[in-house]
Parts: sequence; C-alpha cells; structure tokens
Amino acid sequence: VGEIINLADFEERARQTLDPAAWAYLEGGASDEITLRANEEAFRRRRFRPRVLRDVSSCDLSTTLLGQAARMPVGIAPTAHHGLFHPECELGAARAAAAAGVPFTASTNSSLSLEAIAAAGGDRWFQLYAQRDRAVTESLVKRAEASGYRALVVTLDTAGQGRRERDMRMRDVMPQTTQGNDATGGNSLEAVAPFLSWRDIDWLRDLTPLPLVLKGIMTPEDAALAVEHGAAAVWVSNHGGRQLDRSLATIDVLEDVAAAAGGKAEVYVDGGVRRGGDVAVALALGARAVFVGRPVLYALAVGGERGVRDALAVIKAELRNTMALLGIRAIGEIARDCVL
Amino acid sequence: VGEIINLADFEERARQTLDPAAWAYLEGGASDEITLRANEEAFRRRRFRPRVLRDVSSCDLSTTLLGQAARMPVGIAPTAHHGLFHPECELGAARAAAAAGVPFTASTNSSLSLEAIAAAGGDRWFQLYAQRDRAVTESLVKRAEASGYRALVVTLDTAGQGRRERDMRMRDVMPQTTQGNDATGGNSLEAVAPFLSWRDIDWLRDLTPLPLVLKGIMTPEDAALAVEHGAAAVWVSNHGGRQLDRSLATIDVLEDVAAAAGGKAEVYVDGGVRRGGDVAVALALGARAVFVGRPVLYALAVGGERGVRDALAVIKAELRNTMALLGIRAIGEIARDCVL
Amino acid sequence: VGEIINLADFEERARQTLDPAAWAYLEGGASDEITLRANEEAFRRRRFRPRVLRDVSSCDLSTTLLGQAARMPVGIAPTAHHGLFHPECELGAARAAAAAGVPFTASTNSSLSLEAIAAAGGDRWFQLYAQRDRAVTESLVKRAEASGYRALVVTLDTAGQGRRERDMRMRDVMPQTTQGNDATGGNSLEAVAPFLSWRDIDWLRDLTPLPLVLKGIMTPEDAALAVEHGAAAVWVSNHGGRQLDRSLATIDVLEDVAAAAGGKAEVYVDGGVRRGGDVAVALALGARAVFVGRPVLYALAVGGERGVRDALAVIKAELRNTMALLGIRAIGEIARDCVL
Amino acid sequence: VGEIINLADFEERARQTLDPAAWAYLEGGASDEITLRANEEAFRRRRFRPRVLRDVSSCDLSTTLLGQAARMPVGIAPTAHHGLFHPECELGAARAAAAAGVPFTASTNSSLSLEAIAAAGGDRWFQLYAQRDRAVTESLVKRAEASGYRALVVTLDTAGQGRRERDMRMRDVMPQTTQGNDATGGNSLEAVAPFLSWRDIDWLRDLTPLPLVLKGIMTPEDAALAVEHGAAAVWVSNHGGRQLDRSLATIDVLEDVAAAAGGKAEVYVDGGVRRGGDVAVALALGARAVFVGRPVLYALAVGGERGVRDALAVIKAELRNTMALLGIRAIGEIARDCVL
Repeated sequence: VGEIINLADFEERARQTLDPAAWAYLEGGASDEITLRANEEAFRRRRFRPRVLRDVSSCDLSTTLLGQAARMPVGIAPTAHHGLFHPECELGAARAAAAAGVPFTASTNSSLSLEAIAAAGGDRWFQLYAQRDRAVTESLVKRAEASGYRALVVTLDTAGQGRRERDMRMRDVMPQTTQGNDATGGNSLEAVAPFLSWRDIDWLRDLTPLPLVLKGIMTPEDAALAVEHGAAAVWVSNHGGRQLDRSLATIDVLEDVAAAAGGKAEVYVDGGVRRGGDVAVALALGARAVFVGRPVLYALAVGGERGVRDALAVIKAELRNTMALLGIRAIGEIARDCVL
Repeated sequence: VGEIINLADFEERARQTLDPAAWAYLEGGASDEITLRANEEAFRRRRFRPRVLRDVSSCDLSTTLLGQAARMPVGIAPTAHHGLFHPECELGAARAAAAAGVPFTASTNSSLSLEAIAAAGGDRWFQLYAQRDRAVTESLVKRAEASGYRALVVTLDTAGQGRRERDMRMRDVMPQTTQGNDATGGNSLEAVAPFLSWRDIDWLRDLTPLPLVLKGIMTPEDAALAVEHGAAAVWVSNHGGRQLDRSLATIDVLEDVAAAAGGKAEVYVDGGVRRGGDVAVALALGARAVFVGRPVLYALAVGGERGVRDALAVIKAELRNTMALLGIRAIGEIARDCVL
Repeated sequence: VGEIINLADFEERARQTLDPAAWAYLEGGASDEITLRANEEAFRRRRFRPRVLRDVSSCDLSTTLLGQAARMPVGIAPTAHHGLFHPECELGAARAAAAAGVPFTASTNSSLSLEAIAAAGGDRWFQLYAQRDRAVTESLVKRAEASGYRALVVTLDTAGQGRRERDMRMRDVMPQTTQGNDATGGNSLEAVAPFLSWRDIDWLRDLTPLPLVLKGIMTPEDAALAVEHGAAAVWVSNHGGRQLDRSLATIDVLEDVAAAAGGKAEVYVDGGVRRGGDVAVALALGARAVFVGRPVLYALAVGGERGVRDALAVIKAELRNTMALLGIRAIGEIARDCVL
Repeated sequence: VGEIINLADFEERARQTLDPAAWAYLEGGASDEITLRANEEAFRRRRFRPRVLRDVSSCDLSTTLLGQAARMPVGIAPTAHHGLFHPECELGAARAAAAAGVPFTASTNSSLSLEAIAAAGGDRWFQLYAQRDRAVTESLVKRAEASGYRALVVTLDTAGQGRRERDMRMRDVMPQTTQGNDATGGNSLEAVAPFLSWRDIDWLRDLTPLPLVLKGIMTPEDAALAVEHGAAAVWVSNHGGRQLDRSLATIDVLEDVAAAAGGKAEVYVDGGVRRGGDVAVALALGARAVFVGRPVLYALAVGGERGVRDALAVIKAELRNTMALLGIRAIGEIARDCVL
C-alpha cells in the first residue's frame, strides 16, 4: 500500500509490519473462521436505499452513549495486550479515542494498568472478565470506579476458550507482553471465571453504581433477560469470531436483539466493522453505537496514537459521506428503511 | 481482442489504450465497488421467457422519449471530461448519437462547451449540476435552452463526493482536460451545490420550459415526490456505482420506482448496461429507456465517433435479436412477463 | 483422459481431437453463454430423495415415444453438420441410436441427405427448419415420410440467428462440410424462414400424417397453444443455449410446461444433459423423454458409431444405477417426489 | 502439517502417507461427488445461537445408545478394508473406540474377522451386508451374536454399486487386503444381495434378538416404515456420498426423518462430520448420535489406534467447547433452537 485511504490499508500495512505470531493472534478466529468471515460478509450483503433532495447541508454525527456525549456513534471495543502491537500500548488507542470524542473500552487483559490508561482522559469504559475469586473482581471494579471509568462492560461469551487454531500453531513463538492489571492492582489477576450465571450479574449490579453493559448477547432471549436484570446496555458480539465458530454474524441477529431490548437498554454491536457505512447499517438495524476492534489494532500497529486517530477519522469521513448520500442529517434519522 | 463483436471488446481495447489514471477514473466506483459490480450482476441474474410463433417479420425498435422520436429506447448517459478519452471529446459521442437517432446527454462537466456540442445536432439533453450560485445555474440553463437542448437532466445523488478510491490513489498523476462550460459561458463555473432540496427543483421548474428529468432516484418514495414536483421523467441511477457504495443495483429498484411513477412520468435507468438484452430486461421492468455510460466512453476511446457509432450498432443488433427471439414485434410489447 | 468412463471424458477427448473452429461451433453458446452454463447447472442443483428396500431386482428402462417402443427414455437431439466431427457423419450417430433402441432425430442441416441417413434403420425423426418457400418445406416433409421418418420435429426458436460469438470470431477458419438435403432433394434448400406463426403449424399439421413435435417451447402459455394446435409432443428447449442468452434453463421451466400440456401431448426436454441421473430428474419433473445433443457429437468425434454406442451405454448404465438407488423399478415409477 | 490440532490435519497427513489408489478409494464419492461435498457443506452452512450466563460449570457429554452408556454421542461408522490403511486394521479403530467409550461398528467387509475384532472389547456393533444366500447371512448374524456385538446395522442403500469414478480409474492398481469374514467364518462370503425388501428386514428381526439399526434411510417415508417394521434405530446416511450422487445432504433430511421416527426409534446420522460442533448441530436437528467414517480412517492411517484415540479426543474437546459456548450443560439440553 502507498497512501492510507481506508481501513483495509491499515490491515495490509499491519500485516507487513507485525511479527507473524502477533499477527496470527490479532487476525485469527475460532476453528474454521466461518464466523470471522461471516461478520464482515453480513455487512457487505446489506444494501442502502438512498434518498435525495433532503438538504443535508448540516450533517450531525453526534450522539450520547450511556448519557455521555460522543462525537459519533462509534467506540473502541476492548482488545487485549496492546503491547504486542505498539510500544504506546493502550495509551495510544485511548488517547486517540479521547481526541475523537468516542469511548475507549479498556480490557481487563490490557498491557498497561487501568490506572495508567486513565491518563488518556476521555470517556473510558472498563471491560471486566469476572475472576474466579470475587474479591479480585471487586477490586478491579472499585479500581475502575476510582479511575473514572464510566461503564462496566462484562464479557459473557467466554464459558470456554475459543479454539483459535492459528494461535495454537504459534503457541511456542508468541511474543510476550505485560499484564497491566496484575502488576499494579492490590490482588493478583487469576484465571477468568468461565462459569457465570445471572446471579453474578445481579451481584455486580449491586456492587457498583456504574452502568452495566452486557457484552456477548446473541439472542433476543438473552437480551430480554439482560433488561430484566438491569443492564444499561446490551452489546451484540460473537467476540469477533474468536469464540464459537459458526455463531451467527452479529449484524444478522441485531434487529431481533434490538426488538427484544425494546428501548429499555441501549444496544451496541461489534464484529466485522470495516467501513463507515457499516455504522449506518448497524444503526438502521437498531444499534445505538458500533464498536471497532481489529481495525484499531491495525492502526495502532501502523502508527500508535497517530494511526488510531487517522483510522477514526477515516470511519468518520466515510460515515458522514454515507449519511449525506443517504439523505440523513442526524444520527436519529437513520431508520430501518435506509437498508435492505 | 481481434474483431470487435460486443461491448466487452470495446472495454478490453480501451483498457489497453488509455493512460492508467484515465482508466481508473473511467472504470472505478465508490469504496469497495460493490454497487459497481452489483449493477451488472443484477442484469445478468434476470432470465428471459421466450415466446415462439409470433411472426416477428417486422420488428420495430422505435419509441418516443419526452415526445421526441428515438430509433431505439436507448440514450447516452452524461459522463464528464470526454477529453480524457479521445480528442473528439463530446462531439464524437454526440455525433454518433445523432446518427443513431438516440438522445445524447451533455454533462455540465464536459470538456467542450454546451454550445460547441450543439453542433452535433440530434436530440440533445443537458445534464445540470446545480451550482452554489443560482445565477450560474440559471446561466447554464438559459444557454442550454438557447443551444437547442430539449431536456434538463438534474443530477440529485451528489450530496457528497463519492469515495472513489482508485481516483484517490491516482490523484497526482490524473491527466488534465478542459472545462468546457467554464471557458465559454458568461459566468465562471463554481463548485457544485451539494445541498439541494425539493425547493430547488420547484425553482428550476419555474425557471425553464424544458422538461425536467430527475436523475439519481432510487426509491419509490422519491419517485412519487418527483411526480408531485412536476418531473417529466424519473431516472433511476446510482451514478454508475460511483457515489454511495452498497446502494441497491438500479435494475433491482426499477420495478418499484416505475410503479410509484404510475405512468405520470417517464422512467429511465442506467448502470450496468452491457448488452442489448439488458435494454429488454429494463423495459420489461418498467423503464421507457435505458442510458449507457461507460461503454460509450470505451468506444470513444477506441475510435471516436466511429467507435461510438459501432457500439450503438452493437446494442441495436443485440436488442433486435433479443426481441425477435422473445417473440416481440414492437417496443410496446415488452411486458412484465418477458423476464423473471 | 485415459479410460472413458463418463460423458465428460468424451468431451475432453473431443476437445483434444477436433479442429479449434469445429470445437468452437460445437461447444459455444449465445452471447455470454449464461444459458449454456445454466442448463447444466440447473440439473446439478436438483437433489434426489432415495428410497430403500423396494426390491429393484427387475429394473425396466423401456418406454414408448409417440407410440414406438424405446429401450430407454432418451433420444438423440437434432444437431447440424456431423461431417464437421467424423467422416461417418449422421450415419454414425443414427446407427448407434438404432442399435440402442432409441430415436435419432435427423437435422434439416445434416451433412448427409435424409435418404442416406434412413439406411441406419431404427426409429428416426426428421427435424424441420421451415423454409421461406413452402414448396421446399413440403418437399422435405414428403421426402421424410417416404424415407420412413416417424415424426416431424419443428424447430421454433430461430426467429433470429443466435449471437454465437465464438463462431463469429472463427468465421474465416470454419471448416466446410456438405449440405446433405440440398444436394439430393428435388428443390434447393433456401434460407430458413424465421418468421413462423401458428398458422404455419396448422398448415404442417394438414400437410402430413406424421405426428408434430414442437421444439423450442419454453413457457406454459406456448405449451397450451401447442396442444390446441394439435401437437403430438412439446419439446422444451432453448437450443442448447445457442439462441437467446439468459433464457431460463430448460429443466427450470419443465414442470410448468408439463402441467400446461396436461397429458394431452408428450413432453420432451433437452439442454445440459450430461449424466444418466439427469434423465431421472427430467422424468420426475414431467418429461417423457430426454434428448441429448452435444455429448453425442463428442462421442461421434471420438469414435464414430462406436463412440456414440458407448456414450449411450454410459447414459443407460448411469440411469439404471440411479433408478436402482432411488428404489425405482420402472420408468413409470419415477414420480415428482423423487427429486427436490 | 506440523502439530495435529483438528481432523483436517489428519486428512492432510493421511493424503501424504497413503498409496494413491488407497487414497482414491478412501476419499472418493460417486459420479461428480456433489453429494460428497454437500454433506460437509450442509454442516458448515448451519449457524449457532449461543446463550450466555447458563453456568456450564458441569458439562456432561454422556448419553446412552440402544441402552448402552456412551461417553459422548458419537460412534465409529462402518468402513471396509482397514488393512488398506494401517497394519492394525480394524483392531486399531475398535480399541480406540473402546478406550473412548463409544461404539465401534465393524463392517461385513472388514480386513479382520468379526471374532478377531471382538478382542478390542467395548461396545461393538456389526454392520451387515445381507448376502444372496440367506444361510451365509444367518451365519454372519449368529457369529456376531456369539462374539458379543450388541446391534445389527443393516445397510440398505446398496441396491446398485455406486459409480465411484476415482476407483474405476484406479482399478488396476488398487492394493489388496484380506477379507476377514470370508477366511474365518463357516461359510464363504458371497456377493452382496442388492435386492432387499422389507420382508428381509422382517426375517432379520425374527432371526436375532439384537436390535436392528437400519442404515441408509433418507426420507421420512422410509423412517416411518422402519419404525413399523420394528427397527430400534434409523441411521440417516447416503453412504458418505459413495452411492447415489445428488442425494440430499444427510443433515438436510435429518429433521424430517427424526420427526417421522417420532421418538419410537433412535435416530443416527453420518456423512460430512469433521468438527465436534457438527455433533451439536446434528443433535439439535434430532439425532441421538453421530457416526464418523472417513476421519477415523485418516487417523488410523496416520497413527493406528493412537491416531484414532487422538481423533476422538479432538472431536470430544471440540464438542465440549461448543456446548459450553452454547450454554449447554448436558446432551439432553441440545434443543432445536440452538441452530438456525
């Protein structure tokens, strides 16, 4: 690639840059990677119905997420171990998000501690892997509150470890990075608790005033339960195709999940977002925001904070362009009939 | 390619002939070029239902468009900057259209002035990009009237600039051509006004006695509004896949748009026409005529006026052959049940 | 290819054997060859529902066609100019058909005269291209009667000449063969009459006691008209994809055509038959017999009469095998529920 | 391949290891191998609907098959001539099955005698090709009873010999193996009786107290008849795509067959199983167990008993992982709504 014009350019350049094992970890999905591919393809199959002569002289991309202003309906999804990709680690991506006015979600498994990441400012959310020892979990939550994180994103789709075969074949040559929250917290980070139930959600809801975002919901049934258990938001995700292969594409379940949420919880989606137009598709199908994972890491690998800023600018420019050509003046106007 | 037999032969020869940047400009579409490909594929997916023993000894391809006779239900779509492709510029294509008895649509962004193009004679229409300064727009319209253009084709799908990535990568090496209407008119041509509304259409309707053709309609909703605002024709177009990628293929929206026009406005379509049989498909789905863009430029690049004459002759021969084999004796007999 | 096991082996060996222009003529279809490919693909998309434990110890493939016994529900479709493919010309294929107990259809455009072909014996049908001069047509029909042909197959789908682009590119190097019926008949063979109507069918019906088989029917509407005009059989055909490209695949219209024939005319189909299993598919969808075109020419090119005998034996073995594995003991048991 | 991680790794390594004719025999299917491919593709097209927060801390894969405990709902399908693939012959696979706690089905055409295979212990079933001479059949059944086989699996889909063209081309170079049941039994093994009827099933049911498993059922009609004739289980199979090409994929008929069995017979399925997740798909669609054929032979070729143990361990790990990520705690919880 010469000039960087779209997110695929970041991907190609990152592929050339990164250590093969780090690349396998970043790019790979579970088993046959059917869901990995399906996520992207499901977006690409959707078709727009553009309207004309709607005077889009002002085109407002801003929205609110959990009550906080966001300059576009896009956030950065939690991804682990940024140290594998760039020496700025999570700070690069977090600062870029703050500069762009969109939320950054810090992973429990970040290379830097959540306190270190907090220095980036901006709207920060904390992604929680509930730990086997509830005291460790509680400590993580309290640290997140103390460091100004504004939402707790609980990952639900890790009842088993996804069979990521690229990783399995690279196991012995995988580069190492720091475990940020282990080194700096009051408790040592233990193995993730795989066997969560709705009682754990109730316990978390009582533990913290932070809004709970439940990530990994793929069915209307679970969306309805999430609302019932007090979730502030339902995050449609199949973990980027890294957990259960042959799961449905996220965009294909979004509409039913949003209907089940019934306006009582915000609805987010991740998986396969590679174009600003994807954001419009997701919003038309009921999402309030879209979260971006791998492309942020591509951009981080290519240029640290600067790269991620550029990637977010590409998404924004593409989304603005899509909205103008759809005849949409504000985020709230993106309705079901924009896409087929 | 040896002998030229079909439009794909022109395309291949043009590819070999043209400067790579001019080729990229001609051939490219927006973003992932999904809509660019979808336009052609949507035609190719349709299937004919041929009838036999209908005595097609006379097979009449003639029709009328906006009340003017046309020797076949085909016209030349507006495309910019013919100077990039052949020294005859727009005159080559316009003369070929006049010779073939089909309308030629001159682009606002032509390499020659609209007055210079008028020398070609024939049924000429003027494509208008409304300008930021209404006085400039008015001047263009009055010049078109004065030069004998018979219709005003208003392009509606440019509320943003399509993200044509092939162009973006070729920006620095794009060859230059003249801006015909700038040099010869009374006003200098300014930036296109992106933010049109139906009030601008009303203003144009009051400004000129020319029939208004609204180009870039992709939904029944907008087709109904077009009729309501006095359009003489609705032109289904996604700008050849150059504006909003993932727009529906034009042929896939045609039937609904035609139903919404309800016979109160003529309906045209462009995008992906590569065979005379495509014309029959479009007419069966409700179009009164089909407009051809890129193939005209391929033929212009290959052989100037002569090339475009040959290309129009290929389309006509293929259309006549399709009609005979369908058991159709006249344009008006091409009905919905000809295609599946 | 080493050993010849299936019809594709004949095709591959013929490709290696034949002059490139003869190959282009044999293999090519109209325009983009969409229908050419669709014919084969439509068969391959169908799925069988095999039944078990039906005691297929006797498996009877015989049937009757127009009242004549046939040893399997298969015939040889009319194809022109066998002299391009093998020095035995039509006699090779006709003798093989007689030996296999299936009908051979001699083309008006055969390399040998219809009288010469009659020497092959067996159940022979004559394919008629109606001529501009009715006297010539009448002469052909009377010669066919006198030479013992038992049916008149009237080709209906030549209201125009299919645009076979492979042929067009090879025009100057096409090898020559004799025009059998011109040299030997009482009248010279003129250009085919393209502009037939149902009145011509009525005239033919009154002209000859031979049963009329109408070839080239692709719609239920025309099938109903065929019955009304006294056709003994309706032959579903798109001329092997050589006439109107993007016509539906024959197997995809068969069921509706058969329903329209309503048992008042026999129903045949050709186009894309490459396996004995295809015969079972066609019969399940309403055909009484299947006609084979190109594969007979592949086999003729490979081995003359011997080759065609072998090809017919392959089809028979495959059909018998398919029937046994479907749990079918006789042709009449192949019912709609055998295929999906 | 380096490390062996999934069943495809076994396949690739077996391909590198085996004699080309043995490989062709193992890998090939009938005719165009459409059904061979369709079996695998039908599994891959299905999509999971994962549930979260279901506390899968205990995940129980055990089930019963014909009243016998199995440690997972998986068995080894009958395949012939293991001696072509590994010197341990059937004993390698049978011992691996016993070690894994799943049933092994010995083929009539095994390289070792059924008595020799009995030494492996475990839950063993005997696959019967009914012989032309009922006395030979009876002898096989009585030997199977005497050697502790617990079920009689009667193969029904061999009313003809599948046209396996890879084999036909390799006929002269196919390596030889022993015919185990010929050498050791009291009667010589004759040609298989192709022409079975339901009366033969009735005779077998009266002949032996062993539960009858009818293998090769592909329609609800035959499933209903199987129940009526006293089958203990219905085994959905198209013989791994080796008999009737273009048969439906097994997974695509499973649901209807299971509905027809109506809980009165157990339902099994084979064909195209390559992932533990496939087992979950099949159970969701109504199967009680899935049988694995070719992958067992890949593994046998790669490593004898050790290889097959490893292959079964891969399937089990993948199934356990799939169940955990679906939110399933026990085999009985895999319900219709798990898959789309």
